[in-house]
Amino acid sequence: MSNSAAPTIGVFDSGFGGLTVLRALIARLPRARYAFLGDTARLPYGSKSRRTIARYAAESARFLVDRQGAQFLVIACNTASALALDAIQDAVSVPVLGVIEPGAAAARAASRSGDVLVIATDATVQSHAYFAACRSKGLRALEKACPLLVPLVEEGWTSHPVTSEVIRIYLDELNGQAAADGLHPDTLVLGCTHYPLLRSLIQHAVPAGMRVIDSAESTAEAAFHLINGSASLSADANAVPSTEIHCFATDSVDKFERLGSRFLGHPVGAVELVDLGG
Amino acid sequence: MSNSAAPTIGVFDSGFGGLTVLRALIARLPRARYAFLGDTARLPYGSKSRRTIARYAAESARFLVDRQGAQFLVIACNTASALALDAIQDAVSVPVLGVIEPGAAAARAASRSGDVLVIATDATVQSHAYFAACRSKGLRALEKACPLLVPLVEEGWTSHPVTSEVIRIYLDELNGQAAADGLHPDTLVLGCTHYPLLRSLIQHAVPAGMRVIDSAESTAEAAFHLINGSASLSADANAVPSTEIHCFATDSVDKFERLGSRFLGHPVGAVELVDLGG
Repeated sequence: MSNSAAPTIGVFDSGFGGLTVLRALIARLPRARYAFLGDTARLPYGSKSRRTIARYAAESARFLVDRQGAQFLVIACNTASALALDAIQDAVSVPVLGVIEPGAAAARAASRSGDVLVIATDATVQSHAYFAACRSKGLRALEKACPLLVPLVEEGWTSHPVTSEVIRIYLDELNGQAAADGLHPDTLVLGCTHYPLLRSLIQHAVPAGMRVIDSAESTAEAAFHLINGSASLSADANAVPSTEIHCFATDSVDKFERLGSRFLGHPVGAVELVDLGG
Repeated sequence: MSNSAAPTIGVFDSGFGGLTVLRALIARLPRARYAFLGDTARLPYGSKSRRTIARYAAESARFLVDRQGAQFLVIACNTASALALDAIQDAVSVPVLGVIEPGAAAARAASRSGDVLVIATDATVQSHAYFAACRSKGLRALEKACPLLVPLVEEGWTSHPVTSEVIRIYLDELNGQAAADGLHPDTLVLGCTHYPLLRSLIQHAVPAGMRVIDSAESTAEAAFHLINGSASLSADANAVPSTEIHCFATDSVDKFERLGSRFLGHPVGAVELVDLGG
């Protein structure tokens, strides 16, 4: 693609939760063309082996780069970021940004005590990717799987008393564990792309003074700096008059179209079905 | 397989929820060899197209018949029963029993008013398979998707106040809809293999006098009668001294082994990983 063409940012998730990352990207980089792929035929990645996830993620990344012309890739999926970032970087020749590193970096910037909490899906917690990314920055991280939060968001109960109660139970368990471990956490990382939709309930439930880090926002911030640091991409960015969004899914576009707008904050439009095989 | 060998009953699910059906089968037919396959690499079936589900289910059925010697197949999966029973029957030469028909038959036997309620996953409700099976028996059925119940069971909250509250909310909505439609339901069908673990909470939440039908039990009952009606299978059944169970999964046996015992009611033992391709 020449510099005069609009820059295309590819955004990839196993489902449509990553639309919260796309939403944050658009807020930070409105003048770009976005191609979002949800690999809905093969979700959830969380229950699959690392080898399988790496193959699926690499195929998805190649679709965005080779077939949609993406010049920059955002892996808006915690599981793929945790288990397949290397495989994706090997599969394509454009810069690739995951969600975990920016989340950990934002926690590092926010925390004074050096102790942070991370809530995420079971698969992300089992990978301990946030723990490792935080440790490499000198932070002590305690992770907790909160498997009910994704279904509660998908049920649309984002401001429901049941959801408040579930969040309270999870955070009580997590804070109790932190106290038992002698930690003094002052920062909570939302390590799942669905959780930004629960941000106000979570903000309400955390102890006074605790900072809540939304890794979607942190990732958008990191993408902004990486793209502005790249001469060709930032030149392109100035050539695009407004936001353009193209959404793709590998199966069952109904749920994507039905729920996606809630994640993106405005209608996703028509979702195009693509076949990646497998 | 000769008549002197032990009869093998194949039980298939996309995950491990179907272990509640296996549990009911063992209670009714303890003297048999069971081969259970959870196609965990490719779950959930619910979000996939009918063609894809039919292919996966047929491959799984062939594994149980051709490689495990199953002489009778129970499809312990509502989605596969709803969307792929024909494809499975075409793929193998042994008798095949799904969970929907027995559930509807038990509702027919239980209901005096002729109006029944069905709770199930989103995919099962969207297929309207229970509605159709009930209508063919002269019943009016009102179906409701209860997408939070499976995650609540998998979180282990089977007697938790949050789960009681979620059940109350779902049943209030369902009973309100039934009243608005002019129905007088006296029977509730549990149309998901996870729901038997919530039976006591559900029993507590339904209006007085409402019968609760567990399709796992109804399916085991139907299997018992079909097998006793088959000379070769019932002869075999008398030749087996006790229950033998072999569990197989297509990916990630950890969760299967961890949660499976809760569904089966006793330890599942070692789960063997098998590769069906795709």
